[in-house]
Amino acid sequence: MLIVAERINASRKAIRAALERMDPAPIEEEARAQDAAGATYIDVNGGTFPGREAELLCWLVDIVQAVTSRPLCLDSSDPDAIAAALPRVKTSSPMINSINLEADRYARILPLALEHRTKLIALCQGEGALASTAAQKIDLAAGLIERLTGAGIPLDDIYVDPLVFPLGTDHQSAQATIAAIGGIMARFPGVHTICGLTNVSHGLPLRRLVNRTFLVGAMSAGMDAAILDPTDRDLMSALYAARAVYGHDEYCMELIEAFRDGTITA
Amino acid sequence: MLIVAERINASRKAIRAALERMDPAPIEEEARAQDAAGATYIDVNGGTFPGREAELLCWLVDIVQAVTSRPLCLDSSDPDAIAAALPRVKTSSPMINSINLEADRYARILPLALEHRTKLIALCQGEGALASTAAQKIDLAAGLIERLTGAGIPLDDIYVDPLVFPLGTDHQSAQATIAAIGGIMARFPGVHTICGLTNVSHGLPLRRLVNRTFLVGAMSAGMDAAILDPTDRDLMSALYAARAVYGHDEYCMELIEAFRDGTITA
Repeated sequence: MLIVAERINASRKAIRAALERMDPAPIEEEARAQDAAGATYIDVNGGTFPGREAELLCWLVDIVQAVTSRPLCLDSSDPDAIAAALPRVKTSSPMINSINLEADRYARILPLALEHRTKLIALCQGEGALASTAAQKIDLAAGLIERLTGAGIPLDDIYVDPLVFPLGTDHQSAQATIAAIGGIMARFPGVHTICGLTNVSHGLPLRRLVNRTFLVGAMSAGMDAAILDPTDRDLMSALYAARAVYGHDEYCMELIEAFRDGTITA
Repeated sequence: MLIVAERINASRKAIRAALERMDPAPIEEEARAQDAAGATYIDVNGGTFPGREAELLCWLVDIVQAVTSRPLCLDSSDPDAIAAALPRVKTSSPMINSINLEADRYARILPLALEHRTKLIALCQGEGALASTAAQKIDLAAGLIERLTGAGIPLDDIYVDPLVFPLGTDHQSAQATIAAIGGIMARFPGVHTICGLTNVSHGLPLRRLVNRTFLVGAMSAGMDAAILDPTDRDLMSALYAARAVYGHDEYCMELIEAFRDGTITA
């Protein structure tokens, strides 16, 4: 299971404050904690600071790389910020979060991915309305996968995110996403699927419970990557248990090991 | 989701002791607690007391019925005990736990189910070895369903239990059971599937975590009933969250209600 650790994101108050003050300490602390908790990739999102996106994303990249050897996931709504940050990345195969089927975004992210041989989070999102049914999500995924592989991106570098919307406004949204994951994995063997978890529980009580239950449900359909908070031990416990339940953990050794070293808990 | 509450079972030390002393208090307490926690059915299992199975099962039935109006699930390895207990059951549609394809068991339980119009837990178990793959489990399920419905048992009264074996000895066992659930529900629309959860985690650490993750996985395949401990709040929380995630909880009202009344927790 590939884990993209989500905590260094300007939508979080403490991170935004650190960016405003250009205070590296909270960023370093989050990077170290997520590394220790089992992140595969560390996402860096510098938010929206008009005219300063590139500067701040580069600043985040430098800080995080100084304290962890985990590869980075460059996350920005501004393709120029990603373009500026990519040459500073020291590890091989960074990830870009994200590309989609919007013409401008697609045209500006694709060459960066090809030049730097990055992995890509590919959102099931076009110019028009968002896809809410499984069939719509699978259609957008197929369009993305066919265009990206046609352009030279290896299938193994594509992480399709079918997106999930809040259950509170559409109680079928999580199941539609889970069904889309199953459909995408069946139709394109070798591609990856990924999803951010937190949106599913927006506006509901018991958000962490709903998020981790959605994770277990999405893994049942074959999702092999997730954007999540690896310092949430209940969430990581559900992830390890799901690996075991779905037959991915031979002799349950990963589960037993994670229990012994205190990574997970009842 | 139909919940068969499992705590009144002679395999538990406190229940066995109560049976030995014929002390009703611990039985009454478990019946009340499981009723309050959301049991649909209360399972009563009097264990193996040579020559006294019928007497003790009848004793349990009388005690439990005096403190709860939930229907009973009569659980015994001795068909004569079930035959003796059935006439004492006051609620309509009791459940029998269980029938299977073993010739003697099948021949003795079927007429009881027909006479008393009970629901039936039907185990994927024949005379020979236990079924370990999904295909074997589905074959046994098909045999059971076809024979039972042919004999006059309504499909809606059949709860197929594909059985799950410990992950510690076969790390594919849970996934085989989940796949069997999906196959059975697809092939026989209208039938129900059920499973006891605890066997999956036998010999592992973090058993409650593994059990509830297996529940969420089995529900992803359409399992609509479970044999479980409804007084385990973490387990019930996972169940409510799974109902929401899989699209069975319109506006998430059941989840929100269960949170408000304190039934479930983060």
